[in-house]
Amino acid sequence: MDPELARYLPILKWGRGYTSTALSNDLVAALIVTVMLIPQSLAYALLAGLPPEAGLYASIVPIMLYAVFGTSRALAVGPVAVVSLMTAAALSNIVEQGTMGYAVAALSLAGLSGVILLVMGLFRLGFIANFLSHPVIAGFITASGIIIAASQLKHILGINAQGHNLFELIISLVAHLSEINWITASIGILATVFLFWVRKGLKPLLQSFGVPSSATDVLVKTGPVFVVVATTLFVWGLDLADKGVKIVGVVPQSLPPLTLPSFSPDLLGQLLLPAFLISIIGFVESISVAQTLAAKKRQRIDPDQELIGLGAANIGASLTGGFPVTGGFSRSVVNFDAGADTPAAGAFTAIGLAIAALALTPLIFFLPIATLAATIIVAVLSLVDFSILKRSWTYSKADFLAVLATILVTLALGVEVGVSTGVALSVLLHLYKSSKPHIAEVGQVPGTEHFRNILRHDVITDPSIVTLRIDESLYFANARYLEDKIHNRVAGDKNIRHVILQCSAINEIDLSALESLEAINERLGEMNVQLHLSEVKGPVMDRLKRGHFLAHLTGKVFLSQFEAVREVGSGAALNNTPG
Amino acid sequence: MDPELARYLPILKWGRGYTSTALSNDLVAALIVTVMLIPQSLAYALLAGLPPEAGLYASIVPIMLYAVFGTSRALAVGPVAVVSLMTAAALSNIVEQGTMGYAVAALSLAGLSGVILLVMGLFRLGFIANFLSHPVIAGFITASGIIIAASQLKHILGINAQGHNLFELIISLVAHLSEINWITASIGILATVFLFWVRKGLKPLLQSFGVPSSATDVLVKTGPVFVVVATTLFVWGLDLADKGVKIVGVVPQSLPPLTLPSFSPDLLGQLLLPAFLISIIGFVESISVAQTLAAKKRQRIDPDQELIGLGAANIGASLTGGFPVTGGFSRSVVNFDAGADTPAAGAFTAIGLAIAALALTPLIFFLPIATLAATIIVAVLSLVDFSILKRSWTYSKADFLAVLATILVTLALGVEVGVSTGVALSVLLHLYKSSKPHIAEVGQVPGTEHFRNILRHDVITDPSIVTLRIDESLYFANARYLEDKIHNRVAGDKNIRHVILQCSAINEIDLSALESLEAINERLGEMNVQLHLSEVKGPVMDRLKRGHFLAHLTGKVFLSQFEAVREVGSGAALNNTPG
Repeated sequence: MDPELARYLPILKWGRGYTSTALSNDLVAALIVTVMLIPQSLAYALLAGLPPEAGLYASIVPIMLYAVFGTSRALAVGPVAVVSLMTAAALSNIVEQGTMGYAVAALSLAGLSGVILLVMGLFRLGFIANFLSHPVIAGFITASGIIIAASQLKHILGINAQGHNLFELIISLVAHLSEINWITASIGILATVFLFWVRKGLKPLLQSFGVPSSATDVLVKTGPVFVVVATTLFVWGLDLADKGVKIVGVVPQSLPPLTLPSFSPDLLGQLLLPAFLISIIGFVESISVAQTLAAKKRQRIDPDQELIGLGAANIGASLTGGFPVTGGFSRSVVNFDAGADTPAAGAFTAIGLAIAALALTPLIFFLPIATLAATIIVAVLSLVDFSILKRSWTYSKADFLAVLATILVTLALGVEVGVSTGVALSVLLHLYKSSKPHIAEVGQVPGTEHFRNILRHDVITDPSIVTLRIDESLYFANARYLEDKIHNRVAGDKNIRHVILQCSAINEIDLSALESLEAINERLGEMNVQLHLSEVKGPVMDRLKRGHFLAHLTGKVFLSQFEAVREVGSGAALNNTPG
Repeated sequence: MDPELARYLPILKWGRGYTSTALSNDLVAALIVTVMLIPQSLAYALLAGLPPEAGLYASIVPIMLYAVFGTSRALAVGPVAVVSLMTAAALSNIVEQGTMGYAVAALSLAGLSGVILLVMGLFRLGFIANFLSHPVIAGFITASGIIIAASQLKHILGINAQGHNLFELIISLVAHLSEINWITASIGILATVFLFWVRKGLKPLLQSFGVPSSATDVLVKTGPVFVVVATTLFVWGLDLADKGVKIVGVVPQSLPPLTLPSFSPDLLGQLLLPAFLISIIGFVESISVAQTLAAKKRQRIDPDQELIGLGAANIGASLTGGFPVTGGFSRSVVNFDAGADTPAAGAFTAIGLAIAALALTPLIFFLPIATLAATIIVAVLSLVDFSILKRSWTYSKADFLAVLATILVTLALGVEVGVSTGVALSVLLHLYKSSKPHIAEVGQVPGTEHFRNILRHDVITDPSIVTLRIDESLYFANARYLEDKIHNRVAGDKNIRHVILQCSAINEIDLSALESLEAINERLGEMNVQLHLSEVKGPVMDRLKRGHFLAHLTGKVFLSQFEAVREVGSGAALNNTPG
């Protein structure tokens, strides 16, 4: 087997060793996931502003393509809450919801996102996702959960309301509150309360009856299916659709259709940034689920290949009537817990959903929209987690600021601005922190070869020597700070004859910093002060040798700080004649 | 004396000890700088697209305000080449050159820039300037020098040509080449050649006559004055203005007028970004000159106070008919070399220029524009220095890329896009570099307590232990990389029971990295592998103690790597029974 081919087609690895045990495990997992996915897919299509069948379609071909190209054995790919919200946010800025153009734009968004992911995978650009810090993601997910929940309240209450951010939504909800449909509201609120109870109350109850924990977990996940069946029967039996309860209505009985996204350069231009953000957010969500599950079985995940898998899945979605997809947390965990052994479980799930799309759609004609909204609300409120605010406050104020800004901006100005602000702010805060590195003036601990901060320890110093330990790599953002620090330390003290930079914590010196060191060396020279370095790391030294700095250095480079002080100190004592 | 007041008014410090020696030194320096500044000020006003008197005005009040608020004793503030170019670039996008609106917009730009500098100084935001890396500045200055020289060719040749970037300029020059005025061209080319000769050939000549080096330096700087006088007399004597040679013409005889910039929100909005870039570039240029000169006399420079000084100077320029100013390199060096002792030299220079503005302007009526263009070209070509390309190529490819992009984008798309691209690219490259930190797997050097890279040294390892030394602080951009690295190292090797992270080079762990460590700890736990840390720095450890990570850590934190391996290794040997 060609190893290069196997890298791009992981199916070649696991497919060869496929056993009948794996087959039966995969089939069982697929059945459970299929049952769970039917209501979830319909609901996320609703959230994305698309007809319900789009949710089913988005779960069929993408999951199969991921099975071929992805490296995770348990990841279940399909519509997920945050990506669906971002899809709605991106599209409703451009085309009107409910139009044909909206559905076509959703295909383009999925296709564009697929191409972006694929390109990132092929060129190994996965590192771009690293610019999303954990606190920013946590803040973003929390804020998105709140917006999603708020956006579904109108379906629960049976009223009209719109808005791209939380405040617009709330104002619109309040303005339309008089139009409330009480039957819809009763169904919606009961469904929501029931689903919350299933999450919180059912598991302990079942366990008290002695049902094993693994089974209760799976049963809890099928709660939405029960609500779907019950409320559909209820609406059908009591003819509530005639009383103003909005229902799903006609859903075509069809396999996923072959579709072509719009290639309008204008549309693609407008969708580029949203597609990029959706790709990154989707990738980050997916890879963290994949790695968590892979660790449980000591399996490997290749992030670059994951990009290719998700890219293929999204391109698949764009060609078969779907919308942007990614690896979902809850469905993947169910898949894993239900015993999925290989990506074949995903393929079987796809077959299950295809059967549902072909045969079962007439059964959901009377399914109330309020029920779908209830499943969304219950699902996303588990994403809302303000503890990150407390965690970050305790650990680091810079991280706290990034979280807070991400949450507030996302709520106030929407998902795209929110996540962009978070990324920009965390980059700026990081640069700011490293622009003022910790620089300790150190002295010798008596009787040892160790050097410690003169402010914290009782150490020996020599008035003619200043030793500074810089606890940060030197690069453009802090190069000038070092110049200022050294200049101001030396300019005021005429006893100083030697400055030693202890470089033990310097992992890199970029060209800006090198030029700053040259300027420092020259300026110290003007003041008749020698500059020395000590404990320079190998790779840093290798690089310094490429420039002229070492040739012009007024002092020396010492292997250890101790050696530096011993040599320079005695030299200074000899030379240090008055005047 | 109130020390807080003295910080904001450095004049209170040096003013009290002002001596008659300092007075005579300052007067001599001021005379020399004044003579040099007259043609330079006129020329830079031309470059900024403003009438010549604006250059004189911009050198009078700003230099006095800097004398009060600035901390450098030798810095000479006024119009400089790059800032004048940026002024022209910013304004000609918005208003037509030569109109009254253009001059008023220049006042607004100076005022806005002054306020930005002042705010940065008062809130100690000088670190923002650090995001301009040295290579980006070098590339930007070089590209600007080329654009400036190209923009002056039309004056040398006596033709019309326009363009915001190099290519537009060249195309426009070629298109108008047939309109060349040969008399203008002769004056322009001769003046240029003469000025180049003064720079390169005059000094050795004078020195061969035994003139001391300090005097030759000053004489060389007065070359432009000689050319101004000679060409003015020439044009006047031969009535060349009637033959199509463009001259300066009527310049009002006046002290700097009191002016009010436009406060139109629309205009200020459009000028905000250019004003910000001008402020940053100007500050960086100014502070590096100030520090270089201060070092020669062991004087201190306070960067935040420098911002205040430059801010005051620019606000002064906006209220007295000027345009954006900063501390210039060549004038400051002349000031220093001529013996300026205190900022009073600047004030005396201002008085000299005020006298020139009042009395001497009729004398420059016949001064050809081509002469001013020649002085600009010769001045800026000394800024053009492609050696940074070679330097950066040798030292670091990332820095090379940033320089090259800055030069090319500045030439192709203009100064604002150029410098913004440079900054964005250097930030991205920095994040990219630190997103894939050097992680070495280390083993014990036999017979020592040292641990070295297993790929480079012959070391002892234990199959049940993996020790990774991470040569970088851990933060969001590299947190996931570490997760991948550790996961993939451990997932494939079932012998591993312990992972030790040697943290000696980790200066910081942000919240993202902390959460990654928690995820790593948990995932390793799933694989039945313990995670240990060794050689964690004090501040990092302090912060780790604030979270729950240490409580959940499956392994221990060791003071030294040696201790870690000794304890964990023997434990592993005891527990490591087959199966």
